[in-house]
Amino acid sequence: MGLIVQKFGGTSVADAERIHKAAARAIAAKKNGNEVVVVVSAMGDTTDDLIDLAKQVCKFDGKEISPPKREMDQLLVTGEQVTIALMAMAIEAQGEHSISFTGGQIGLLTDEAFSKARIQSINKHRIFDQLRLGKVVIVAGFQGVTPEGDYTTLGRGGSNATLVALGAVLDADVCENYTDVDGIFTADPRIVKNARKIDRISYDEMLELSGLGASVLQTRAVEFAKKYNVPIHVRNSQNENEGTWIVVETSNMEQIVVSGAALKKDLTRVTIKQVPDYPGVAAKIFGDIASANIVVDDIIQNLMDDNTANISFTVEHGDLADLKTVVDRICKELGGKCIAIYHGDLAKVSVVGVGMRVHTGVAQRMFKALAEAKINIQNITTSEIKISCIISKDQGDKALQVVHDAFELHKAP
Amino acid sequence: MGLIVQKFGGTSVADAERIHKAAARAIAAKKNGNEVVVVVSAMGDTTDDLIDLAKQVCKFDGKEISPPKREMDQLLVTGEQVTIALMAMAIEAQGEHSISFTGGQIGLLTDEAFSKARIQSINKHRIFDQLRLGKVVIVAGFQGVTPEGDYTTLGRGGSNATLVALGAVLDADVCENYTDVDGIFTADPRIVKNARKIDRISYDEMLELSGLGASVLQTRAVEFAKKYNVPIHVRNSQNENEGTWIVVETSNMEQIVVSGAALKKDLTRVTIKQVPDYPGVAAKIFGDIASANIVVDDIIQNLMDDNTANISFTVEHGDLADLKTVVDRICKELGGKCIAIYHGDLAKVSVVGVGMRVHTGVAQRMFKALAEAKINIQNITTSEIKISCIISKDQGDKALQVVHDAFELHKAP
Repeated sequence: MGLIVQKFGGTSVADAERIHKAAARAIAAKKNGNEVVVVVSAMGDTTDDLIDLAKQVCKFDGKEISPPKREMDQLLVTGEQVTIALMAMAIEAQGEHSISFTGGQIGLLTDEAFSKARIQSINKHRIFDQLRLGKVVIVAGFQGVTPEGDYTTLGRGGSNATLVALGAVLDADVCENYTDVDGIFTADPRIVKNARKIDRISYDEMLELSGLGASVLQTRAVEFAKKYNVPIHVRNSQNENEGTWIVVETSNMEQIVVSGAALKKDLTRVTIKQVPDYPGVAAKIFGDIASANIVVDDIIQNLMDDNTANISFTVEHGDLADLKTVVDRICKELGGKCIAIYHGDLAKVSVVGVGMRVHTGVAQRMFKALAEAKINIQNITTSEIKISCIISKDQGDKALQVVHDAFELHKAP
Repeated sequence: MGLIVQKFGGTSVADAERIHKAAARAIAAKKNGNEVVVVVSAMGDTTDDLIDLAKQVCKFDGKEISPPKREMDQLLVTGEQVTIALMAMAIEAQGEHSISFTGGQIGLLTDEAFSKARIQSINKHRIFDQLRLGKVVIVAGFQGVTPEGDYTTLGRGGSNATLVALGAVLDADVCENYTDVDGIFTADPRIVKNARKIDRISYDEMLELSGLGASVLQTRAVEFAKKYNVPIHVRNSQNENEGTWIVVETSNMEQIVVSGAALKKDLTRVTIKQVPDYPGVAAKIFGDIASANIVVDDIIQNLMDDNTANISFTVEHGDLADLKTVVDRICKELGGKCIAIYHGDLAKVSVVGVGMRVHTGVAQRMFKALAEAKINIQNITTSEIKISCIISKDQGDKALQVVHDAFELHKAP
């Protein structure tokens, strides 16, 4: 007996049959005595199809423009709007009452950062009114509206942001995130065959894992869930199994040294050498890179004997072309002998666990396991609950397996 | 130099190439010194595809529900929203500035009659603000929003209602209705080969022709245009020809006896015999039929010797199944010997012209032409500017041609 917010991603609502499966799940939760709010994404490839259409009309006379972001959001929000209407119809066809709302219809206000807007407020009253009438309330994920009435989208994984934001404002007992996997695993089960589903994990651990390539939940949604202390239950839409609960850290979680391991492939290490060493130079470099919307990680700076610095960091392959343009400009502006060197084909293997705060020897155990497998560590970065090693990409899968073995993650804690 | 509202129907925006053609036309109007607002429909078959999707999810477990109307409108409005975004992008790609608005975004408020809502008001200020900034403003046709924020659709031909309503509130110099034909013809050119494009026609004549089966403009849009005196220019989106101007009646229009002829096929004549003759019985019959959303026409009532009445009228074939259910119920309720007889395979040929008000002998000329062609007239109905004859369906095409010939409609007046 409580209030549940469920979210079904694009593959879980890809056709009429799957929409009915998701509808049946919402109805089951209602029949168990809960009030139920359902967040849905666009059906299957709808969003990609709309983006293709936009690209077509943005070509004219041999030239091509970037789609204006406001119009792109005006276009993309239709994808979720189609799904909410169909989901409400499916629930009615199964004999329960339902009503659908777009982001705008529940006053999901955002800033005006089209394509990556941030949620500012939600008017919960219209939802509560309909829940009180006994209806299953369907809400379009991924979208909001500016105070002026323009449609916005919330960026990649935006439907999860909607899920968690609704969980927070409605003070939900749980946010159920339905995907096509059984939950969060100790490592990617496509690589590590004996990876184990995690039953409970803390927000902080999930944040680290999300940032390290575990793609089920985006960092932003987890941050939001942590801030408002909304439990998230990641489950498989195709079965009834318990999934993974993402919850506030409890004291017994620290007994587990390492909760999970992650592998990020396709990294390039960039080293800018002979950077003049004066205050603000790092801020300039990383400010320029951030302005180009490129995410960097694993920053290391070394001061050299000649009073210049070497600054290195990693980026994902996909961002490399853009990055090179920015770095070339930076080097010109900095002058001197500044030069950039690129090492491609790298990967990063990481272990994450709040238990690291109280247990010692974690790093050593990781390094030893990698060394015994003859995997060379090129760089190490750490946080309070994470250790990452940059290694050669072709040893990535092996590294993930040996680290997983070293901490015996296949065994239930 | 003025304000033009253009409307492009579904076939004129069916793909990226046609969207660019429509965009070019809007830009040309702007470069001629006009402020330009563009109303668009959903692309090609989009609306039908969405309706199919809705039908799919409304089936469950061997049963089928009618799609809830609010959710159907929530679904269907996405069709036009996709087109407005793409049209705005296409105009930007061609180098002009543009902004798109949904019905809700320009405060196009309607009543809550989902699927056939009526426009109540439009907030023109947001449109004027953007026109003043030099932008081509794109508006989604066919849709509005209730004061509570629910999406509504305006019924069949709703994009034309949007066109004319915008023309009225913006005090436009002209509403250009782009279709795939050259304008309004003296008769359907697929049947009458020597039909002639009409240059100018009055609102009243167009109202009659629309009601009689000329499908370019719906009756409601013409009514609205007449009420607010908005000139409509029906044009072909594939060429630059002058089309047909639908305008307020001028005195010289009466010099033309007949402006056009029309044929409506697939009619059934329903005769309810032995109806008890007491006050209010006709009101009851036609009230019940109207409640079932069935349109009837050509009503004739004859009082019989036995103090019962015969009431007959025509309906379109598509409504026949629904009508029979209603009529059976009515007959039971009226009691007595009340019985309904159905004559299918009928057609109605009509001539329309404001000149009938001042010219005599029009009816005679029509009847004579039909008689000479051995076409039997089963019923006649008239209005001040229209004469209609019910005939056998298989003589419909021939009747249209002989009437067209009799009034020499192929000749320019």
